[in-house]
Amino acid sequence: MRVIGIDPGTGILGFGVVDFVAGKKPLMVDAGVVTTPAHTPLDQRLLDIYESLTEVVKATKPDAMSIEKLFFAQNITTAISVSHARGVAMLVGAQNGLQIFEYTPLQIKQTLTGYGRADKKQIQEMVRIHLNLKTTPKPDDCADALAAAITHDLMTRL
Amino acid sequence: MRVIGIDPGTGILGFGVVDFVAGKKPLMVDAGVVTTPAHTPLDQRLLDIYESLTEVVKATKPDAMSIEKLFFAQNITTAISVSHARGVAMLVGAQNGLQIFEYTPLQIKQTLTGYGRADKKQIQEMVRIHLNLKTTPKPDDCADALAAAITHDLMTRL
Repeated sequence: MRVIGIDPGTGILGFGVVDFVAGKKPLMVDAGVVTTPAHTPLDQRLLDIYESLTEVVKATKPDAMSIEKLFFAQNITTAISVSHARGVAMLVGAQNGLQIFEYTPLQIKQTLTGYGRADKKQIQEMVRIHLNLKTTPKPDDCADALAAAITHDLMTRL
Repeated sequence: MRVIGIDPGTGILGFGVVDFVAGKKPLMVDAGVVTTPAHTPLDQRLLDIYESLTEVVKATKPDAMSIEKLFFAQNITTAISVSHARGVAMLVGAQNGLQIFEYTPLQIKQTLTGYGRADKKQIQEMVRIHLNLKTTPKPDDCADALAAAITHDLMTRL
């Protein structure tokens, strides 16, 4: 199963595509971020995100999307901004026939580290180990997207 | 100038297309709502909204989109849900080359009625008068979308 993990955001959106095959180590296929310049109108940023993400999905053909769910206690301004990008990312998934799964930051932390209050470094280190990488993927948004993909694999094995 | 007004939402999204020509009464070209069934996965609802709204825009070819801006003191759960749909609506605008303008509920109320605390009925009555309609457009979401379109026209005349 090939999963694209998404860490949504309007300024920077992380994605990570991983192949999970039973009995084999997960294989990172692609990972990166879509950045949109600040002071660009929101609609143009969303169009950028839509086009870039559609390109990634068309090129890598994942079966499923695993996307971070918003944490409702977040700052409302951030939540509103992230939700615009998140809506567009989910649309790209739906348009390309991907099954979509949502996990909260708490679920991701607990699934990867067994500890709901794990910090960013611990998550990044677990991503590095799971994907058998020499260094942790940068930037954070990219590592978080890969963490979402790995979480989906681990959750479906339960 | 032809303007599509949008009252965003995931369960029900209102739209209203109005022609504004200097020296003439505004003319309502189209108005309606996109509803998506409850208990449908969010990504499918967003896909519905994207496809329905794209159809309206392709059919009516507006020059601009006037969309309600979220009020930051709103309930965060509602704000997150509305923002997903709002992101998709803005994407449709950007994809079809529309200029996009955002107005807060306060701006819409003040522009239409001169009173920031106007209630829904007062707004609906002003929409009816501006568009020279016999009855107020139903449902509310449709009237609110038309109110956004009229606000844009009035704001650009200032």
